[in-house]
Amino acid sequence: MTRTASAPGAVPAVRRRTRHFPGPLPLASGLELRAYDIAYETYGRLAPDGGNAVLVCHSLTKGSHAAGRHTPLDAQPGWWDAAIGPGRMLDTDRYFVICADVLAGGGSTGPASTDPATGRPYGTTFPVVTIEDMVDAQYRLVESLGITRLHAVVGGCFGGQQAIQWAISHPDAVRNAVVIGTAPDTSPHTVAIFSVMRHLIRSDPHYADGDYYGGPGPVQGLGSALVAAVPLWMSRDAMRQRFARRTIGGLGLRHTLRPEFEVEAFLDRIAHQQQPAIDPNALLYLMRAEEYFDLPGRYGSLEAALEPVTARTLFVSYASDWRYPPEETDAMHQVLLRQGTYSRHAVLDSALGHGGFIYEVPTLAREVQPFLDAGAPIPGDETS
Amino acid sequence: MTRTASAPGAVPAVRRRTRHFPGPLPLASGLELRAYDIAYETYGRLAPDGGNAVLVCHSLTKGSHAAGRHTPLDAQPGWWDAAIGPGRMLDTDRYFVICADVLAGGGSTGPASTDPATGRPYGTTFPVVTIEDMVDAQYRLVESLGITRLHAVVGGCFGGQQAIQWAISHPDAVRNAVVIGTAPDTSPHTVAIFSVMRHLIRSDPHYADGDYYGGPGPVQGLGSALVAAVPLWMSRDAMRQRFARRTIGGLGLRHTLRPEFEVEAFLDRIAHQQQPAIDPNALLYLMRAEEYFDLPGRYGSLEAALEPVTARTLFVSYASDWRYPPEETDAMHQVLLRQGTYSRHAVLDSALGHGGFIYEVPTLAREVQPFLDAGAPIPGDETS
Repeated sequence: MTRTASAPGAVPAVRRRTRHFPGPLPLASGLELRAYDIAYETYGRLAPDGGNAVLVCHSLTKGSHAAGRHTPLDAQPGWWDAAIGPGRMLDTDRYFVICADVLAGGGSTGPASTDPATGRPYGTTFPVVTIEDMVDAQYRLVESLGITRLHAVVGGCFGGQQAIQWAISHPDAVRNAVVIGTAPDTSPHTVAIFSVMRHLIRSDPHYADGDYYGGPGPVQGLGSALVAAVPLWMSRDAMRQRFARRTIGGLGLRHTLRPEFEVEAFLDRIAHQQQPAIDPNALLYLMRAEEYFDLPGRYGSLEAALEPVTARTLFVSYASDWRYPPEETDAMHQVLLRQGTYSRHAVLDSALGHGGFIYEVPTLAREVQPFLDAGAPIPGDETS
Repeated sequence: MTRTASAPGAVPAVRRRTRHFPGPLPLASGLELRAYDIAYETYGRLAPDGGNAVLVCHSLTKGSHAAGRHTPLDAQPGWWDAAIGPGRMLDTDRYFVICADVLAGGGSTGPASTDPATGRPYGTTFPVVTIEDMVDAQYRLVESLGITRLHAVVGGCFGGQQAIQWAISHPDAVRNAVVIGTAPDTSPHTVAIFSVMRHLIRSDPHYADGDYYGGPGPVQGLGSALVAAVPLWMSRDAMRQRFARRTIGGLGLRHTLRPEFEVEAFLDRIAHQQQPAIDPNALLYLMRAEEYFDLPGRYGSLEAALEPVTARTLFVSYASDWRYPPEETDAMHQVLLRQGTYSRHAVLDSALGHGGFIYEVPTLAREVQPFLDAGAPIPGDETS
């Protein structure tokens, strides 16, 4: 070991950058986006030969702010701060970590952006985009940063769909893929839950058919949708562990319709949080992209979909994840094995189910770190 | 077999009756209900000695109309028609089947009833009632019908909570209990889902703090709540079987935010159905009662809770029921066995999960019929 890593810690102050792409981006729908911006953050330093880059694909309600703080006053660091930093799972002493807002989300071009044709926000006139489109936009970003081949693409859930799509769409540009909590397609049950969320956002009179920019916007509808989603990402066991049947303030049952249980107070806080985490229209577009993800449907069969993959692939699933259960993840793993592509599938325990990868990094790191270390040598890293 | 059963079929025309109880009903909250009505239906004939009565306890959004039609023009029969009738699981050639609206629900006294103290609907001034209170009110109904001991109490989910509570609160009045899809307590995850539904009903401006009688009422909020509940009662597998990823009209993906998938059209129909199935306030009270159900919490331990039970008990659970999983049902079964009380636990397969007992009667009947037949002889039935 000649490398002197800093002690595990946070990345230094970060900032979000935006890159403009003037060329048209053809979309899966047959439409094209004439020009677009992609917002992104990076952590660590790119090796001179560009070989140490790791792309993190964010999950549905997260964004490009994956690690660190923009200012020392920020209450919270980025959403995967526990996983990204010097000595952490994605070690910024070794890797150059990139996280970009997906197309239609966050600071990237999407429904809140100005439509050059009208000078007004796109709203719901923004074209419906797919995971493939998002990956193609990221590919151009990566290319523009001087990277021809990523050491790894890493993502969970919606981010995992992007990670496997990267290995399918751009096989020469991905050395390793870490695909967490992802199935070959999105189940009708998840479509149903997203449909409920859509219904709640649209039922808010302030939604105004998506043309709410400049007005108050569907704050209440978004709050309702985010509340309705809680039992989707926080599992039954996790709620049992976190709240049990405790009453608010330990006061016992008061026999009232007002909130009685701690879990109710938790949901009330989510419904009424001041800062909406995401633009409601963007959430509608991102859910749609997740719903459209269907490898067998898109490519004819799972075998045909995964045929181009050359990346070493690590699938991670959670035994308690009832939305993206291990057996569905395993279907992809088995196909890659049959096709002679290196693949590993780790089934982890977590009371959090689908949310495990965000909040329980040490368990995940035990799988991801050796997998990334055993990947092809990282140019510029003398220890490898 | 000297009994000549009619061919399996529907019960003849039924009607809902209401019985008034002038005496006060003490409630678990410490309050009391001064007088109240219980609405109920019956199917079959009560034996002269009153020994062939089976009480069906309805689940959350159902009611006393369990079987048959009120008029030949009714589009749908009662909610458990497949299970109740001549030759059916609860054979009305043998049994006198009773189903009553729970206190606070349907035609029984509840938030929509007139408060004698004010001459106006109770609304949310109606006292919060528990499963115990509902069972006590049913007990008085059963007693008033001349029945001192029920041949059986049968119920699923919310109805299962009532069935086991019957065996606890009134052990001398229950010979057999069939407890389906029920756990010793209601999990915080179910509280969370109900909390979402509460939030949606209350967010509707027409809810007016529950004082909406005479106005339009929170029709949209109730629709949203019922939609949000769908992924709760229809399992992931059931949705996969029923809808797969089929698009509306088989038209393929249109890349739009408007409904694309059949499962979305199904949810839209639920959101916009014309006849609200239940009074929104009643739903709030019934959900609360289900949430309060907590045998270990109420009695100190599950052992203490079940100690009074003398009824032969059949527990039924569904392997795919993630809300009330078999292992939680089994905890009650094991305690009864240790206490020397006859108990049986059947774990059934059903793609429907929690809803299995309503829609897949034949599988259920294979367990329930022999269990009821093997119970104590039914007076007046020469075949037993």
